[in-house]
Amino acid sequence: MRLYTEQNLAADQAVALTAAQAHYLRNVMRANVGDNVLLFNGRDGEWSSRIDTIRKGAGTLLPQRQRRPQRPEPGPWLLFAPLKRAPLDFLVQKSVELGAAALQPIQTANTNTGRINLDRMQANAIEAAEQCERLMVPEVRPAQKYTFLLENWPKDRYLLVCAEFGAAQPIDLMLRNAPPDSAWGILTGPEGGFLPSELELLRNRPFTRMVSLGPRILRAETAAIAALTCWQSVLGDWHEGRPNSHEPSTPKL
Amino acid sequence: MRLYTEQNLAADQAVALTAAQAHYLRNVMRANVGDNVLLFNGRDGEWSSRIDTIRKGAGTLLPQRQRRPQRPEPGPWLLFAPLKRAPLDFLVQKSVELGAAALQPIQTANTNTGRINLDRMQANAIEAAEQCERLMVPEVRPAQKYTFLLENWPKDRYLLVCAEFGAAQPIDLMLRNAPPDSAWGILTGPEGGFLPSELELLRNRPFTRMVSLGPRILRAETAAIAALTCWQSVLGDWHEGRPNSHEPSTPKL
Repeated sequence: MRLYTEQNLAADQAVALTAAQAHYLRNVMRANVGDNVLLFNGRDGEWSSRIDTIRKGAGTLLPQRQRRPQRPEPGPWLLFAPLKRAPLDFLVQKSVELGAAALQPIQTANTNTGRINLDRMQANAIEAAEQCERLMVPEVRPAQKYTFLLENWPKDRYLLVCAEFGAAQPIDLMLRNAPPDSAWGILTGPEGGFLPSELELLRNRPFTRMVSLGPRILRAETAAIAALTCWQSVLGDWHEGRPNSHEPSTPKL
Repeated sequence: MRLYTEQNLAADQAVALTAAQAHYLRNVMRANVGDNVLLFNGRDGEWSSRIDTIRKGAGTLLPQRQRRPQRPEPGPWLLFAPLKRAPLDFLVQKSVELGAAALQPIQTANTNTGRINLDRMQANAIEAAEQCERLMVPEVRPAQKYTFLLENWPKDRYLLVCAEFGAAQPIDLMLRNAPPDSAWGILTGPEGGFLPSELELLRNRPFTRMVSLGPRILRAETAAIAALTCWQSVLGDWHEGRPNSHEPSTPKL
């Protein structure tokens, strides 16, 4: 059992459960006072904690021992146009597992501007982070206009663009020649594609790197996940070992 | 509009629509006689075809010009334990987009042997192949016992194993040192993990390559898709250019 909390974590400082967490521990996991729960908050590492009190809708945990220290998770920001509910749920879950640092919905000319449910994205991100043993929950950012984002893009951050058309190099080749320890964003286009003027905005920026993802047409969410996978495999933390002595995780699905 | 058919494709040889295809063209796409449809069957390449007749539940197409010749798609076989419906739908769709050559459900000791719906897998594979512009539909194989598969594994095919525990090298390192033009399978474990005896069966085989996918715990379907992505990016066809003059595809979602 592993839970995210917004509260501080320190030995023997009680952490209050939310009503949803108390319900999950009590009714889904059938947990009782004394049972062990892992807690993380994105700042204080991961703590072995004991259930001190639990009842309907409330409860407290007592952190006992820091099991893993906090460490930076310098994954890419993921920029994507809004998707329908199922592909978006999927994209959020998978991008958390694959170590994205932030999720940034974008609005383009061809974007169906159905309102994006940030609360649902946030809840999915938290659940995925709990499951995959991350020490932080990626930041879920409010939607921004694509042109505004591009015009205000940080100078020291590359932007990997999954390009369906035009001059692009194979993603493997580009990543292999990228500077180590560099900061990145990953951008996939909307289902309707970018306008030529939107593509032009990318071509004229020194930070963009246009890459191709092979000869098949990938859905927007597939492209995002595939690019993130390649990034982690070549530039990210997949060359490091797995932290040892993990207890097997319990899938909640 | 792009459809898979089991019939032969040759100029001016009529191809009969299934009732579902006629419904899709007529009622979903609002297509009429004379409209263009791309056809493929996994043997004869892709053909520009014209709707010759169409009515409720039936119709015929006339192939006119071969637009792309058939070419081999030597992607990996994907071996996976049964999953719940949503993750399985997702795995099938994404693995088709990412160029798997065959989908092989496996039964392990820790597999929940809920019957796997092969018809649903097949329908999802066809739809994904139509969408992503592949020239073949991956073979959907009936479930097999893991031990049987391992004992009868072809000697000339490597098996990439997504390993949660034990000695494994980073997937990028392994793929980069793999022989080019080699044949592969990709195996992900069941949600409950392999038994030690099942893992032993992998360790003693010369064709297995145990790889790690970084420090986070990936769900079974995420691991399969991530491994397939890395394979395509390093060993597969992602170093080739995209075939030119694609018409933009129309997402069916």
